[in-house]
Amino acid sequence: MESAHRGKQSIVFSDPPAILSFASVAGKKESEGPLGNTFDITSKDTKFGQKTWEKAETQMQKTVMELALQKARLREDQLDAAFVGDLLNQCVGSSFCMRDKNIPTLGLYGACSTMAESLMLAAMSVNAGYCRTALALTSSHFASSERQYRFPLGYGGQRTPTAQWTVTGAGAAVLGQKGNGPFVLNATIGSVIDAGIKDAANMGAAMAPAAYETIRAHFDDLSTAPEDYDLIVTGDLGQLGHQIVTEFFDRDGVKIEDRFQDCGVMIFDLKGQDVHCGGSGCGCSASVLCGHLLQRMARHEIKKLLFCGTGALLSPLTTQQGESIPAVCHAVTISTERS
Amino acid sequence: MESAHRGKQSIVFSDPPAILSFASVAGKKESEGPLGNTFDITSKDTKFGQKTWEKAETQMQKTVMELALQKARLREDQLDAAFVGDLLNQCVGSSFCMRDKNIPTLGLYGACSTMAESLMLAAMSVNAGYCRTALALTSSHFASSERQYRFPLGYGGQRTPTAQWTVTGAGAAVLGQKGNGPFVLNATIGSVIDAGIKDAANMGAAMAPAAYETIRAHFDDLSTAPEDYDLIVTGDLGQLGHQIVTEFFDRDGVKIEDRFQDCGVMIFDLKGQDVHCGGSGCGCSASVLCGHLLQRMARHEIKKLLFCGTGALLSPLTTQQGESIPAVCHAVTISTERS
Repeated sequence: MESAHRGKQSIVFSDPPAILSFASVAGKKESEGPLGNTFDITSKDTKFGQKTWEKAETQMQKTVMELALQKARLREDQLDAAFVGDLLNQCVGSSFCMRDKNIPTLGLYGACSTMAESLMLAAMSVNAGYCRTALALTSSHFASSERQYRFPLGYGGQRTPTAQWTVTGAGAAVLGQKGNGPFVLNATIGSVIDAGIKDAANMGAAMAPAAYETIRAHFDDLSTAPEDYDLIVTGDLGQLGHQIVTEFFDRDGVKIEDRFQDCGVMIFDLKGQDVHCGGSGCGCSASVLCGHLLQRMARHEIKKLLFCGTGALLSPLTTQQGESIPAVCHAVTISTERS
Repeated sequence: MESAHRGKQSIVFSDPPAILSFASVAGKKESEGPLGNTFDITSKDTKFGQKTWEKAETQMQKTVMELALQKARLREDQLDAAFVGDLLNQCVGSSFCMRDKNIPTLGLYGACSTMAESLMLAAMSVNAGYCRTALALTSSHFASSERQYRFPLGYGGQRTPTAQWTVTGAGAAVLGQKGNGPFVLNATIGSVIDAGIKDAANMGAAMAPAAYETIRAHFDDLSTAPEDYDLIVTGDLGQLGHQIVTEFFDRDGVKIEDRFQDCGVMIFDLKGQDVHCGGSGCGCSASVLCGHLLQRMARHEIKKLLFCGTGALLSPLTTQQGESIPAVCHAVTISTERS
């Protein structure tokens, strides 16, 4: 079968790239959550031995990249490309991680959808033969996000009930042409959807329509239904966004509830950890995918996964200028089988 | 010939995608420069009819996207993917341009290398059959950059001799599987290089080593030499960066001077327009490529062009934290012939 465009916005891989290895790192709060024992490395030091939170983010990325390469038994110079991005202004977490590594690097900005976007582009590159190996890498940090997007931490601002908690974490996956899998079968590129939400403390509601549109397009383009997947997981819609997407599908007469989860809901104990609607940030879906989810796939507990990264494409400045919040969702199918 | 990875960091396209159309827009200062009559649209209003400079940037992107689609006789819903990015925090110029357009969109961050990065990824997607058509789009704005990266405009800070002037402009190119060309033959993905420069007002010197490394890798990977190109053009090294790259190649015994230019040097009259070392910003190489350069290719005055986008991957915060400036350069070969 030829690799090809399918339907409105999907791509099917003729020679599905294999995920050769994956690694995750997370902070103290994440280590105390329900997935605490699934991260490769956790740190009680929020600065990960660095002087600033931004440098900590670079350090987390370096850590998961090195670990993923180690697991795949590859050297840095055997990586043909890296697809990287993060939430920091000018994506400096990633750029500083990749500097002087001698690895061809393409920078991405997809907000919290970055893990799905980077995985998708890495798979596109490997499947087409452009790269023999490719890295997908991203991170986020509670403290660097908090001060960039919201308030200085010392200010102690009260969080609204719809707010989410930016995950301190990073994830990396190495893709290659040969391997035992799991495999990336196909991808659905999301469009930018703006549902008119203006509350930057309610990103779940802002992102839910984008998630719904991409998942629906994915089903349409590839003639699949929820039953074809063991698990459909969104990036970081949180509890409210997850509920909205479920209701949207309900309205269509499509039942996804029994196999639909959200990384932002999974990573924290919503009641016990004071995180309101759940986790968010590029590192949320990255550390859950490159830990818990791919570990479950390795154990064949999940055979087919629809991984949907979700991102809110706002900036503090667009909010100050009275704008609503555009959002995007990219989806990739990961399977233990090559088809 | 199979599409394939070549050498260290290059990709050769088996079925070179055609540039179906291109469009550029620029501001008043750019319209008064040496390339003033090559932009499709210029505006004396720095806000392009909008309320803020950031919205002006979105407006410029919308304008060139619509114009490029018009020229290619395509509707928005006939675009299978858009690769977009800009310099604004969280790339909001692009996200707000793409919202509710119903176009599958992948966000990029490559600083001023974005035009080359987006062109490269669009070509990779079209050549592999993932997309039938793809858009490469980016912009920058003097005033939005100035206040984000440097000082409030009203402050009237004095510029150092090595400083560059961010171009107000945007460029868009539509790629497709069939067409009369020019064609994107191959691409070289850059690595992130940090030469230790800490002066954010000397980005030419910070980016020059990355440009040199990528162009050299390109020659090595594809067994080519400067003589194989009618023109080698970097994004926005400015006068100083251009000189450094020329000297680096001189040291290697490689003469590129007679066919090596820089968009940042070309777009302004360096002596008459008070821009010190020249133009910069994503919109610099975008508006020069999607105006002057591709127009010259259409007239067959340039038959083979090596287009090298250059980006400085700093943020104001990394400078404040005492960091040096990592940089990247991505190169694509554009030719009037399919091989």
